Amino acid sequence: MTMSAEKTSGEDNTVFVGRKDLMSYVLAVVTQFNEGVDEVVIKARGRAISRAVDAAEISRQRFLPDVSVKDVRLGTEQIEGEKGPVRVSSMEITLGR
Amino acid sequence: MTMSAEKTSGEDNTVFVGRKDLMSYVLAVVTQFNEGVDEVVIKARGRAISRAVDAAEISRQRFLPDVSVKDVRLGTEQIEGEKGPVRVSSMEITLGR
Repeated sequence: MTMSAEKTSGEDNTVFVGRKDLMSYVLAVVTQFNEGVDEVVIKARGRAISRAVDAAEISRQRFLPDVSVKDVRLGTEQIEGEKGPVRVSSMEITLGR
Repeated sequence: MTMSAEKTSGEDNTVFVGRKDLMSYVLAVVTQFNEGVDEVVIKARGRAISRAVDAAEISRQRFLPDVSVKDVRLGTEQIEGEKGPVRVSSMEITLGR
């Protein structure tokens, strides 16, 4: 996984979930909502998808009672693996208030 | 995880994704659609969530071109862990044609 996929926040209210601690992604989500945005998109690929769901659920239930899941999109992306291109599942969770 | 969460198919067109091979869940989904149902619900908890997304994507793209993702629901369930009740994320993917 490249560094760009590991960063916890980027442009347009997006949180990319990678291999860091679950709570660092929760913090990224909660921080963005506390800065006043109305919508945050959590993105993940492959095995990080489970962690993205955990981050969404914990953010919502423990810290953001007025926020709910607005949309969940599934997809497949082609990335460069060690032995050539491989397909991985991807997910985007849109949280909003 | 209990045996009931490991079975690949149950009542009302549901496939529970657990620790088996990914392709056994793909087979369960494809078999149900080939038997004539119009909708299959894929359910998973915790780390199996990533596998559930893989099963949905592979079923759809490789075997069921007329099937699409109709709904994705996220949730949190309380289960009995070794040290008492623990909360785990859950997911339900509804595939339909």
